[in-house]
Amino acid sequence: MEIEQGMSVEAIVEGMSHCGFGARRLAGAVDIYEQMLAEGYTKFFTLSGAMVPAGMRNIISELIRRGHIDVLITSGANLVHDIIESFGAHCLGTPESDDVALRAEGLSRIYDLYLKDEDFIKFEELMQSILPDKAEKISGAELMKIIGSQISDKKSILRTAHDRDIPVFCPALPDSMIGLQAWLHSQTKKLNVDAFADIKLIVDICYQAPRTGIVIVGGGVPKNFALQSMLVTPNSFQLAVQLTTDTPEAGGLSGATLSEAVSWGKISAGARYMTVYGDATITLPLLVAATLGRLDKRSQRIH
Amino acid sequence: MEIEQGMSVEAIVEGMSHCGFGARRLAGAVDIYEQMLAEGYTKFFTLSGAMVPAGMRNIISELIRRGHIDVLITSGANLVHDIIESFGAHCLGTPESDDVALRAEGLSRIYDLYLKDEDFIKFEELMQSILPDKAEKISGAELMKIIGSQISDKKSILRTAHDRDIPVFCPALPDSMIGLQAWLHSQTKKLNVDAFADIKLIVDICYQAPRTGIVIVGGGVPKNFALQSMLVTPNSFQLAVQLTTDTPEAGGLSGATLSEAVSWGKISAGARYMTVYGDATITLPLLVAATLGRLDKRSQRIH
Amino acid sequence: MEIEQGMSVEAIVEGMSHCGFGARRLAGAVDIYEQMLAEGYTKFFTLSGAMVPAGMRNIISELIRRGHIDVLITSGANLVHDIIESFGAHCLGTPESDDVALRAEGLSRIYDLYLKDEDFIKFEELMQSILPDKAEKISGAELMKIIGSQISDKKSILRTAHDRDIPVFCPALPDSMIGLQAWLHSQTKKLNVDAFADIKLIVDICYQAPRTGIVIVGGGVPKNFALQSMLVTPNSFQLAVQLTTDTPEAGGLSGATLSEAVSWGKISAGARYMTVYGDATITLPLLVAATLGRLDKRSQRIH
Amino acid sequence: MEIEQGMSVEAIVEGMSHCGFGARRLAGAVDIYEQMLAEGYTKFFTLSGAMVPAGMRNIISELIRRGHIDVLITSGANLVHDIIESFGAHCLGTPESDDVALRAEGLSRIYDLYLKDEDFIKFEELMQSILPDKAEKISGAELMKIIGSQISDKKSILRTAHDRDIPVFCPALPDSMIGLQAWLHSQTKKLNVDAFADIKLIVDICYQAPRTGIVIVGGGVPKNFALQSMLVTPNSFQLAVQLTTDTPEAGGLSGATLSEAVSWGKISAGARYMTVYGDATITLPLLVAATLGRLDKRSQRIH
Repeated sequence: MEIEQGMSVEAIVEGMSHCGFGARRLAGAVDIYEQMLAEGYTKFFTLSGAMVPAGMRNIISELIRRGHIDVLITSGANLVHDIIESFGAHCLGTPESDDVALRAEGLSRIYDLYLKDEDFIKFEELMQSILPDKAEKISGAELMKIIGSQISDKKSILRTAHDRDIPVFCPALPDSMIGLQAWLHSQTKKLNVDAFADIKLIVDICYQAPRTGIVIVGGGVPKNFALQSMLVTPNSFQLAVQLTTDTPEAGGLSGATLSEAVSWGKISAGARYMTVYGDATITLPLLVAATLGRLDKRSQRIH
Repeated sequence: MEIEQGMSVEAIVEGMSHCGFGARRLAGAVDIYEQMLAEGYTKFFTLSGAMVPAGMRNIISELIRRGHIDVLITSGANLVHDIIESFGAHCLGTPESDDVALRAEGLSRIYDLYLKDEDFIKFEELMQSILPDKAEKISGAELMKIIGSQISDKKSILRTAHDRDIPVFCPALPDSMIGLQAWLHSQTKKLNVDAFADIKLIVDICYQAPRTGIVIVGGGVPKNFALQSMLVTPNSFQLAVQLTTDTPEAGGLSGATLSEAVSWGKISAGARYMTVYGDATITLPLLVAATLGRLDKRSQRIH
Repeated sequence: MEIEQGMSVEAIVEGMSHCGFGARRLAGAVDIYEQMLAEGYTKFFTLSGAMVPAGMRNIISELIRRGHIDVLITSGANLVHDIIESFGAHCLGTPESDDVALRAEGLSRIYDLYLKDEDFIKFEELMQSILPDKAEKISGAELMKIIGSQISDKKSILRTAHDRDIPVFCPALPDSMIGLQAWLHSQTKKLNVDAFADIKLIVDICYQAPRTGIVIVGGGVPKNFALQSMLVTPNSFQLAVQLTTDTPEAGGLSGATLSEAVSWGKISAGARYMTVYGDATITLPLLVAATLGRLDKRSQRIH
Repeated sequence: MEIEQGMSVEAIVEGMSHCGFGARRLAGAVDIYEQMLAEGYTKFFTLSGAMVPAGMRNIISELIRRGHIDVLITSGANLVHDIIESFGAHCLGTPESDDVALRAEGLSRIYDLYLKDEDFIKFEELMQSILPDKAEKISGAELMKIIGSQISDKKSILRTAHDRDIPVFCPALPDSMIGLQAWLHSQTKKLNVDAFADIKLIVDICYQAPRTGIVIVGGGVPKNFALQSMLVTPNSFQLAVQLTTDTPEAGGLSGATLSEAVSWGKISAGARYMTVYGDATITLPLLVAATLGRLDKRSQRIH
């Protein structure tokens, strides 16, 4: 591997393919992601961890805009922050903070980022104005679509997913401020979200897609929800990329190897898969930039 | 710190209080947990990671039986395995497995444990026979109570929680095989679980409890769901113990410091809290055994 | 696994043998360590990380005293702190310290421990009075024996190793305050330590021992120095236990699997080995207490 | 942060400066490294972990060639592999290997890389022909220079350091195959390496340099040896960048914060420093490529 000034992300990842350890894992993930985006797979994308507050929002919405995400599964927190960023902003702080002082100043901390109480208040007001007042049962994904339709910021994940008609699943919706607001709303208005209706929607997609690939950022509930949906179909994922800070030794799902998912039948026996261990705020931008660079070259070769 | 043969867990933890690093963290966690159990706190307990398959089931159900858990928040997977262990068993395997071969043999792997397909089939049959057929809306916690009432194994977490009238919250219920079975059941029967009804129940408990403590095993959705419930009340946790393999540097919730939760107002400014980094299959048994030992001594002193 | 108040470390580890993840790893390590101590193996012990400051000193010296360590390989820092603890003490501090303020107060921090400048000054004076003034070449292990002979504290690792005639290897001796002091000493006195003489000593032990076992705490240089010594002999370790916080995915030696050492011929193809991932200030006391408990039972059975 | 196809490493790091978590840490490290390289600091560089086998060799030798490393401190293993790569090559393998089979085939594994026994034999022959036969005492750094002078491969770290007259310190030299070969050599030839002579050399550099910066890759003995050398001078490092997979919570040196080094006086109270957590095979190429890109822009602005 050689380094040159001005080198592109694509070139540095090419160099990493001749290395060991994490570098080669990253290069292998780019190979798989390129195939996933270029060859007509139905593309699942799961997002855990505070990736939106940490600045990954535009990457996700841009991937949706370009048609590179067909199904998004994420945590409630990422969607809350997607909504907040449509009108507010996160402040760059430091992890060595006096948290008692932050509370006194009305700031909530996520590692090295601060959120203002006033933005949460605006969020609550927005949610109370957006949330529907209707009696019939809806699914979580339908609720996400309704919310997305009301966000004006074109860079919003929920807005972009709405515009592109991409389903957004949030299987732990009650575990978020959207959940808290939905419950408050339901005290005085009609809101009837069926806990299990999303399952039908995602299982149908899994059932009908002839070839599927998945990018897993950070594990957690979104990872498992996507993978388990294959269990009630004869299908399984054929391409998979996982970016995670957890390692397998702890036994938890977020660090579980993709090979382990093969034993369950969630990923197919002949699948191509790769896990990159490390902070996704570094590895996700690299994965996306290098893969888009390659797609660009592919399309130039064709024309 | 001195080691002797035959020494008790309580004695070794006492020795650790004079050490550094993880040892002192563990000893500090025991101090806090002792106060939580001895001094009349409302006791929350969150459980993430595959702790039930990994053998922690009896510890949890015994804590409930002894009155040491007032509110349990956990992942769907842990409850699925609680149900499976009421009639089946996990096999001790190895993490270096041929996962394609395991699939061919009908075994699903969780790190170094295997589960048999036949046990999942029994689980599905049991769920279809247990799940209610009634039209009125219920909460997730009510559904958990119904399931718990139908489990005959007295060591079951769900059964013990039912018997002791302890609420079990599972905020990501759709993300589990209970969720999949509930959805299948609802195709032919009436089952109406309100996605947000649990929020009212847990917020009410947070609101009414004058003094609250929490043990957080493994982070994830259960951690956040318990902590966020304080946000809509004037209260916050005064005692907190966290056992996790994640470290703060990754920015994710599971590794976030308890201090960070102070900036949100989820944990109070003057709270006592301690995080122990490491595998909870080791640290949880130590925490519980040492704390119960101390409670025993306390009660002997009184009598 | 069941928890009872007053249960012994041995009993809790017995319970862990039926669990998954780290708990089962720990129980497996105790099985191997019991065999190592009970069945006449030559016992290597490597110690990295700030284990002496963190309170593990008496465990190590007690193992030597009982004849459970035949060869000790460690970092210079652990020996520096062994010497300091023979007259001084570490203060229990906190990892969230103002390090600029600590420096102003003359305190040096190791995570949650503080050391006083005055203890370092005493250490330097002691070293200058202990270090020999003689022209002939000596090995590092001989220097360690000379230092050990001059320490009055019977709990000292170096003193106990001297009394029991156990070699102490410190392959990165220049990388420590002992090294700095030896260099200062050599400016005015005669001190001639051969960089490579220790290699002959340890290789001879490896060559002559028919059966060898090793406990590796924390990896690093001590781990590699012990393992590589087998490479120039026809032998290899037959029993191995590793306690480490590093995982294999980073590619470094400290987290490398013991299986990897089999590919090098450092550990034999038929060896029994087990790695326990986690903080050794927790896992080492458990390993030692449980194993000593079992040895005690063994000897009771014999008599 | 926005991603575009064809974007440079420098541009992606610029985007990361507006993010949180590891991304912002990396961007901060680039800021500090740019200052270190552009503003006349004496530049220390420590290298631990199997970075040379993993493909980082050319980056290190190129940094030396460009004058961006003034003092190199590394592990013996990295130098052994630097020598082996001057005539042989590492094979790209997989971490899921059958290590018993690898041994039978004469392959030694480092995570996902294999080394051939025949290359080790060539290495041994080369070392026996290179190692000097002379009676006078030399330091480790002098021995490294002698070895470097005999390597023909211009991309070699040792050769480049020799050509540029850059000292290479290896404070745990006995803990490597160079050490083993040096010992074998000394059985029949004269070789007299003073264990502590390197200390004088590095302390002199620390003493005389008015402004010093350090890049720490992977911690371990090289990190400590460089930092401790400041302790016997009135100076301390003013700029520091650390790339590591270890986190502070384990208490070990490799994961210790740079702030902790301030309490020791190794890093100055007003220093700029940043730790990037993660696999250095990913973060080191990014750090170097982005910083060189910025230096290039700086020099264009000047001309």
